Amino acid sequence: MTYEIRGIVKKARQVEALGYSITWENIGDPIQKHNHVPDWMKTIIADLLKEDKTYGYADSKGVLETRQFLAELNNKQNGAQITAEDILFFNGLGDAIAKLYQFLIPTARIIGPSPAYSTHSSAEAAHANTAPITYKLDPDNQWLPDMEDLYLKVKYNPAIVGILLINPDNPTGMVYPKEVLEGFVKIAEEFNLLLIVDEIYQNITYNGITSVPLSEVIGDRPAISLKGISKEFPWPGARCGWMEFYNRESSQEFSKFCQTLENAKMIEVCATILPQLAIPKIMTHPEYHSCRQKANAAIGKRSDWMAEILGDIPGIKFNPTQGAFYNTIVFDEYLLTPTQSLSIEDPKLQALLDTWLVGSEMPLDKRFVYYLLAAEQICVVPISSFCSDLRGFRVTLLEEKEEVFKDTFRRLGKAIGSYLKSSEVK
Amino acid sequence: MTYEIRGIVKKARQVEALGYSITWENIGDPIQKHNHVPDWMKTIIADLLKEDKTYGYADSKGVLETRQFLAELNNKQNGAQITAEDILFFNGLGDAIAKLYQFLIPTARIIGPSPAYSTHSSAEAAHANTAPITYKLDPDNQWLPDMEDLYLKVKYNPAIVGILLINPDNPTGMVYPKEVLEGFVKIAEEFNLLLIVDEIYQNITYNGITSVPLSEVIGDRPAISLKGISKEFPWPGARCGWMEFYNRESSQEFSKFCQTLENAKMIEVCATILPQLAIPKIMTHPEYHSCRQKANAAIGKRSDWMAEILGDIPGIKFNPTQGAFYNTIVFDEYLLTPTQSLSIEDPKLQALLDTWLVGSEMPLDKRFVYYLLAAEQICVVPISSFCSDLRGFRVTLLEEKEEVFKDTFRRLGKAIGSYLKSSEVK
Amino acid sequence: MTYEIRGIVKKARQVEALGYSITWENIGDPIQKHNHVPDWMKTIIADLLKEDKTYGYADSKGVLETRQFLAELNNKQNGAQITAEDILFFNGLGDAIAKLYQFLIPTARIIGPSPAYSTHSSAEAAHANTAPITYKLDPDNQWLPDMEDLYLKVKYNPAIVGILLINPDNPTGMVYPKEVLEGFVKIAEEFNLLLIVDEIYQNITYNGITSVPLSEVIGDRPAISLKGISKEFPWPGARCGWMEFYNRESSQEFSKFCQTLENAKMIEVCATILPQLAIPKIMTHPEYHSCRQKANAAIGKRSDWMAEILGDIPGIKFNPTQGAFYNTIVFDEYLLTPTQSLSIEDPKLQALLDTWLVGSEMPLDKRFVYYLLAAEQICVVPISSFCSDLRGFRVTLLEEKEEVFKDTFRRLGKAIGSYLKSSEVK
Amino acid sequence: MTYEIRGIVKKARQVEALGYSITWENIGDPIQKHNHVPDWMKTIIADLLKEDKTYGYADSKGVLETRQFLAELNNKQNGAQITAEDILFFNGLGDAIAKLYQFLIPTARIIGPSPAYSTHSSAEAAHANTAPITYKLDPDNQWLPDMEDLYLKVKYNPAIVGILLINPDNPTGMVYPKEVLEGFVKIAEEFNLLLIVDEIYQNITYNGITSVPLSEVIGDRPAISLKGISKEFPWPGARCGWMEFYNRESSQEFSKFCQTLENAKMIEVCATILPQLAIPKIMTHPEYHSCRQKANAAIGKRSDWMAEILGDIPGIKFNPTQGAFYNTIVFDEYLLTPTQSLSIEDPKLQALLDTWLVGSEMPLDKRFVYYLLAAEQICVVPISSFCSDLRGFRVTLLEEKEEVFKDTFRRLGKAIGSYLKSSEVK
Repeated sequence: MTYEIRGIVKKARQVEALGYSITWENIGDPIQKHNHVPDWMKTIIADLLKEDKTYGYADSKGVLETRQFLAELNNKQNGAQITAEDILFFNGLGDAIAKLYQFLIPTARIIGPSPAYSTHSSAEAAHANTAPITYKLDPDNQWLPDMEDLYLKVKYNPAIVGILLINPDNPTGMVYPKEVLEGFVKIAEEFNLLLIVDEIYQNITYNGITSVPLSEVIGDRPAISLKGISKEFPWPGARCGWMEFYNRESSQEFSKFCQTLENAKMIEVCATILPQLAIPKIMTHPEYHSCRQKANAAIGKRSDWMAEILGDIPGIKFNPTQGAFYNTIVFDEYLLTPTQSLSIEDPKLQALLDTWLVGSEMPLDKRFVYYLLAAEQICVVPISSFCSDLRGFRVTLLEEKEEVFKDTFRRLGKAIGSYLKSSEVK
Repeated sequence: MTYEIRGIVKKARQVEALGYSITWENIGDPIQKHNHVPDWMKTIIADLLKEDKTYGYADSKGVLETRQFLAELNNKQNGAQITAEDILFFNGLGDAIAKLYQFLIPTARIIGPSPAYSTHSSAEAAHANTAPITYKLDPDNQWLPDMEDLYLKVKYNPAIVGILLINPDNPTGMVYPKEVLEGFVKIAEEFNLLLIVDEIYQNITYNGITSVPLSEVIGDRPAISLKGISKEFPWPGARCGWMEFYNRESSQEFSKFCQTLENAKMIEVCATILPQLAIPKIMTHPEYHSCRQKANAAIGKRSDWMAEILGDIPGIKFNPTQGAFYNTIVFDEYLLTPTQSLSIEDPKLQALLDTWLVGSEMPLDKRFVYYLLAAEQICVVPISSFCSDLRGFRVTLLEEKEEVFKDTFRRLGKAIGSYLKSSEVK
Repeated sequence: MTYEIRGIVKKARQVEALGYSITWENIGDPIQKHNHVPDWMKTIIADLLKEDKTYGYADSKGVLETRQFLAELNNKQNGAQITAEDILFFNGLGDAIAKLYQFLIPTARIIGPSPAYSTHSSAEAAHANTAPITYKLDPDNQWLPDMEDLYLKVKYNPAIVGILLINPDNPTGMVYPKEVLEGFVKIAEEFNLLLIVDEIYQNITYNGITSVPLSEVIGDRPAISLKGISKEFPWPGARCGWMEFYNRESSQEFSKFCQTLENAKMIEVCATILPQLAIPKIMTHPEYHSCRQKANAAIGKRSDWMAEILGDIPGIKFNPTQGAFYNTIVFDEYLLTPTQSLSIEDPKLQALLDTWLVGSEMPLDKRFVYYLLAAEQICVVPISSFCSDLRGFRVTLLEEKEEVFKDTFRRLGKAIGSYLKSSEVK
Repeated sequence: MTYEIRGIVKKARQVEALGYSITWENIGDPIQKHNHVPDWMKTIIADLLKEDKTYGYADSKGVLETRQFLAELNNKQNGAQITAEDILFFNGLGDAIAKLYQFLIPTARIIGPSPAYSTHSSAEAAHANTAPITYKLDPDNQWLPDMEDLYLKVKYNPAIVGILLINPDNPTGMVYPKEVLEGFVKIAEEFNLLLIVDEIYQNITYNGITSVPLSEVIGDRPAISLKGISKEFPWPGARCGWMEFYNRESSQEFSKFCQTLENAKMIEVCATILPQLAIPKIMTHPEYHSCRQKANAAIGKRSDWMAEILGDIPGIKFNPTQGAFYNTIVFDEYLLTPTQSLSIEDPKLQALLDTWLVGSEMPLDKRFVYYLLAAEQICVVPISSFCSDLRGFRVTLLEEKEEVFKDTFRRLGKAIGSYLKSSEVK
């Protein structure tokens, strides 16, 4: 198990130690990128901390009022209806994901997207004690899922009991059209599968696109939606995420699985209470929606800028994003070689880079990422770390300062060009 | 896996639904028992929330400054010395415990106390896929561990690779004398074992007793201490606990195990940041120690009151406590029978109780606990739920209101008497 | 794990106990069906037993001379070449099959035919701790494998590391044409799979058909052939079978797996020596081939008789066989109902049958098999016991006495008709 | 998993290849040591092979008449009574042992003797996926078991569900006195354990000693006796052994376990039939008992010769044997060093030996064994390969030719002396 989003930080810290400042593009932390938490939100949270009960334990499943609030929020969408009993809080989505796969029986497999947010694929692989099973997201088709690939894999592999989708997607920024979501439901129906959807970026869409929640199209199929506030408020440090169980009673196995997850959580007593108490207050605040819209619009604008800067660079596949705040850029096949390079003037930096490259059989995109880090001090994550055979890297759309943002991607674009050209015979 | 501390709540809620109010003695939540979080502490936390960075992600292992602070705190005790790198933050101790056992190989066993805080024993049993292995805490010897029992079990069971101790202990309130701790270290040395100590109640001792930290006596043996702020600040809702690795490099296996735990945490990104940021500020606040002392003194006084009220009741073993805020009271052997009862006037309550008792082969202390809940609306936890063959129950010493506290235990004492007598032939 | 070929015997014994004599069609034991072991063969074996060394241990892998003999026998076919070191003896094929799957890692799966000889599918399922993975043999296409089904299942299930084929096939009697075998090899090549072939019936073909050994078409792919003398000599009671490893050094994993199997066998010291000593003497005896040919011709003639008797019965799919000595007859889909019956005059037999049928949700072919056993005292095995969703039964072509043979299948044919008609509305 | 009894053969073959002839003392194969199978026995077996049915399958559990015969044989001892249903045949004891442990749940452990016949300890360890659990046989107390060691290990390790004993013992030649057997039964009773006894050498005792069968003292405890004809007839090449289940219905778990073993065997169809058919005929033959007595007396005499030759050699512990046909000789503690040697004149032999010794951290008794093989061409098995911390080796008492036998052990005795002296400072 590796987690390159965090693992790359060690390398970047070594560059910092040589006196350079890093442009962090490895992690989706809005706070780090100068996104401000609005004052009214801070006030709500600070006020909660005046009450003693904020410091105590919550119910094992989570604060009842908050679960009721979230159930109603879901129910307004007129899809699958739930009650507070169908919601289970965790210490962030990472915790929810870890438990989700840990408590499946080892021979039951969940197929997920490739590339995929690696917390999912690592946890699924660990539970099965073997490699993850994936369906393709297609960079030549706006990163939409290859539904035929999914259909055939599900049809011909009886070990698969469920499908994971991430919508909006991390790391590609793609948002599933309703028709595609319905396609997933249809496959789940035909093969009697559980659907798991990671909807943590559900309210982060822009440039005219909105995300259809799975609950709207799920009908009476069993499903689990994973949600959280890390990205949306944004409050990643709160470690607050939850599961919503749709149609919990639609099958005995699913019902039992939900119960197992509740028991597992109970052993650990409960999840963080402060963010739970804050959720209804923040989400019903008059400025909440406009705040989110403003933030979304800003991401949308950055998406446009990125398209302008990177859209026409030869040798890569670039897709403009519609949701979340990542973009995954992949190199055209066969363009990367193990001899390409970027020029680095500082001999200390070059020496450091050499230690990273020595004797290793790394994927070729990781090699590019190392060069980029050494030459431009831009820290991105290779796409081979996202359970993918493609070669590319993930960047974020979070930098609040326009000039910093544009400068970063101009430098990145130039670096791509130089790197690819460096292998050409002159 | 069951977790009766939380499981009993369902039964109590049914009593509430009949219009009764419950005296909650099931869980160690100081906040619920009217313990106030001091204003200066609230101010520190509220101030932190004014800064944006409080909302972002922390380092995977935890906030560096806080880990440095805690390392120094430990190092002042002049025992095993650590650095920030030897500390790993989790989302509460429940999370730390779950990971600790999950990532041991299945055939490697940790022997723990009986009775035991069930989060430990359940997680250990789940990892090994069989029953927990335990050493006895002796109610006839102030709940001190039966070191010969431990020695022989370790000597004659090669599967055991480590020993868990909880100090101060939950659920017995016992504090290990230094000599006993040294006895554990000696056994660990003789049989080359890892020591794991749950020290979450380390600073909650009273009536002249203090708790010796394991790091003071561990020497150069590998050990893990589990700590947290839930009980001490108290701030259970924060879900903030950590591991301290002592002598991480003293054995290759231990070193590798620590690395595995760090990787596992990294996959889940990081732990809650707010409490981590608060720790150094709170622990260095001038009022911090006096606050804790006052709270400890109050628990100590309640311990005395409890001894006065319950100390001489025939048919039970009562030990005054020295630390944490629980007492475990066990019935003399063979005194419980499946026909004892408490009189209940409300026929609705009686009918409810009957549904709990029907057709089940429950341990006899659980039966008493149900009667107590129905007859007196006092909610305690049977000791058979703490991985023990003894029969009794755990109560807390947390109720801040003197009259409520005394009244609760007077009623409890009376109920014990009536229950035991009810089986006598008249 | 069940093994209906033997399990059905218990039911048949109950019928015997009522005074009836059973026509045993459940098991492929030529001896039971009056097949004689030729005198020259008996003499060879009896002579061997005059020497003391026949009573001692063999080499762990098997008698060296015999392994050399069998290696040469294989090498003459001009396919994959092997040496004595590539042969490993077991106590019958059942033992070889059990070890084969037991020593694969649990997440590595072997896809096998459906219907399948259940010793394979049970052992594979036990090793993986879940249901077997199968490709279809098609009763509408002479029981040939559905190669597209196989291709897609292999392509879309990365857990599959090998393919099992049984040639000639048990329970269908189908013999793979060379083109089909080459198709298997091609798939193995494309997806880098191990081929496992059960060739125990390799020399039992008739009516102009011969069986192509896998070694002839395997090229340089890793493969294991399972062979034995139980059916061919016939000497099932000897418990003597062996593995031939083809291209043992073609991959590191395969090489290691072969070594693991050898080690596993060594722990059990060695396999039965008498049949091993007999093999070269018997197989090089001048009468050996003519003996086998005569026996094959007899089976071929019975295959014709069976086709005459059963070939045109409506409601079933009948395929004439080409090898081995079984035929699998399946009912047309949806023709079986849970209310069909055969008339049984003896009330004791009816009462016995009723006890078998009561309260159970058995596959509908098992229901037919029970009726057939009670009404006609013919003991066959339901095809649902052969890892198949089809509904039918397996019979043998072994009965040496022509009249007994014909009478059995005439009674069987009549019973099929009556049973199917019994549900028609009159 | 290693099986040094067979593994050492590879080394010995290398010595043979240099033109030397080996004195095989590694394996208990009476046939190899010129033990003759009596003519009347050969006649019985040859006669059986004249009948066709000898070549067919047996009942899954074994030939009914033979099982009835063996049940009666056991019942005459007036201990635990059994029927044919309590007997299950296997392809030799190796097969029985493999299945026995394979079908226990992984967390249920069987404690066995140390040193131990490694087929038991390897199979038990494989089933539990960790090291075997053992009790000591004491070379300072005639190799009798250290019952206190056993008692404490059983008492303090709840994973232990059964005890294995081998009686007469391999590799020590010790025969358990009745009192010791009763001690085992008492421990089994106190801790509710299954007893497993390997009694394959039951009728091989001498010099006035007889072996008490477990069934005589087992009372109503559940137990499994493992028996066979390999050593007794002797007919090791037959691969014929069986289990006797005592008090099969005395516990639900045991009853279920017996059924599981029967099902496992059924999947592999049946065990070798010829030896099963021969058993009643041979065992009831008028010369059978005198034959066995004569063979036993011969072993007894060799035991005396060995005691004369090796009994007083300083530096080793020698115990005269009472049963089976092995002796285990251990060196006094700390006498072996990694610099001792035997002089070898042939430089080719020395060079070969050097390749065995290079760079390895082998147990010191294995080092001696290699020297003995190179210097004297005597092939014995190091006792460290028998799951033991002792250092020594196993020899056999099988050589029929007096002079060969005496010469072998004289040479062995001399080699021991030279080897030990070689490290003395001169």
